[in-house]
Amino acid sequence: MILCDIGNTSVDILYENGNRMKIAHADFDPVDRDVYFISVKKQLSNTCFERLNWINIESWIDRSKYYQTMGIDRIMVCEAVEDGVIVDAGSAITVDIMENGVYKGGTISLGVRAAQEAYGRISPALSVSFNFEVDLDTIAKNTTDSITLGYLAPLIHYIKRFDKPVYITGGDADIIGKLIGNCNVDPLLIFKGMQKVIEKRLGKC
Amino acid sequence: MILCDIGNTSVDILYENGNRMKIAHADFDPVDRDVYFISVKKQLSNTCFERLNWINIESWIDRSKYYQTMGIDRIMVCEAVEDGVIVDAGSAITVDIMENGVYKGGTISLGVRAAQEAYGRISPALSVSFNFEVDLDTIAKNTTDSITLGYLAPLIHYIKRFDKPVYITGGDADIIGKLIGNCNVDPLLIFKGMQKVIEKRLGKC
Repeated sequence: MILCDIGNTSVDILYENGNRMKIAHADFDPVDRDVYFISVKKQLSNTCFERLNWINIESWIDRSKYYQTMGIDRIMVCEAVEDGVIVDAGSAITVDIMENGVYKGGTISLGVRAAQEAYGRISPALSVSFNFEVDLDTIAKNTTDSITLGYLAPLIHYIKRFDKPVYITGGDADIIGKLIGNCNVDPLLIFKGMQKVIEKRLGKC
Repeated sequence: MILCDIGNTSVDILYENGNRMKIAHADFDPVDRDVYFISVKKQLSNTCFERLNWINIESWIDRSKYYQTMGIDRIMVCEAVEDGVIVDAGSAITVDIMENGVYKGGTISLGVRAAQEAYGRISPALSVSFNFEVDLDTIAKNTTDSITLGYLAPLIHYIKRFDKPVYITGGDADIIGKLIGNCNVDPLLIFKGMQKVIEKRLGKC
């Protein structure tokens, strides 16, 4: 089974043999094979729909469990986890709570790059790179650590407050995961969610 | 005694009679009277220096208590408080800790407007106004509350974690103060700090 996650900027494909490929939309040429996919891009999603052997699994989700405007990619990451805090650290950082397979709600914080750029826009003096080695339990006496802590310490403490196992995925999963400490960094979380949804629908593949 | 805080975008003046005036730099015409001032704008600060009756009180601070690049306005707000968490909610939100008159350090988070703009830059779908009525102890099932909580809940919980009296000032002091709850909203905090520094130097005025 080939799994495909069509995102806003790229297409992420997981092949049966475990190989993974991330390509730009422009270079995306759907293969003529059985593929299960989700898509946040309507145009690309229709292209795939038209091929009979590409199956959009979005409708296999019980959307009433979530909320109407919640992205299908975010939902699929939640589907991977029965109980826990699910963090997707990308351009935004979503923090979602699952309890016994039930979606309890979530929050959306600014991603690392978005936050860093926003500091620079306030003042050139705040346009510095974060120091990811900073100790989150300290307070700072220099600008770099002050902005790193001002962005990260509240967020990391907030994630830990839920006192549940943390599953983290997305481009900045390693950075954020290291700061959280004891957590599950899993780059394949979205595909695990898709796989679970497919198995629920079709039985064990 | 007239007190004057020359900021990045405007000049804030407190007269003896308690009247306060905030004016744009372009409209700023220093009065020919005894004025104690601080300035983050070097050019304007020199203009005032040249008038003998304008006194820059920056050098009256023991800067070794703070850190080298820390803004004089932020320092002055800290000087107002002996023990507590000092929050200045402006274009950035600074959170500083004073203990027995000693500066322990601080953090710099994004201000309300900076954060809101940064969400909009990630995606038009996240370009929504914050809902300041949201309950910070919940999690959200809609986009507006998700981004409001993603920005504010970590920050507010973080400020409360210090378990000290909170003093809050700056343009968004009312909004942030209401969310923190039991805290001292004080629009005059910077002038109180200046006054304290002046009294320490010159004796009670």
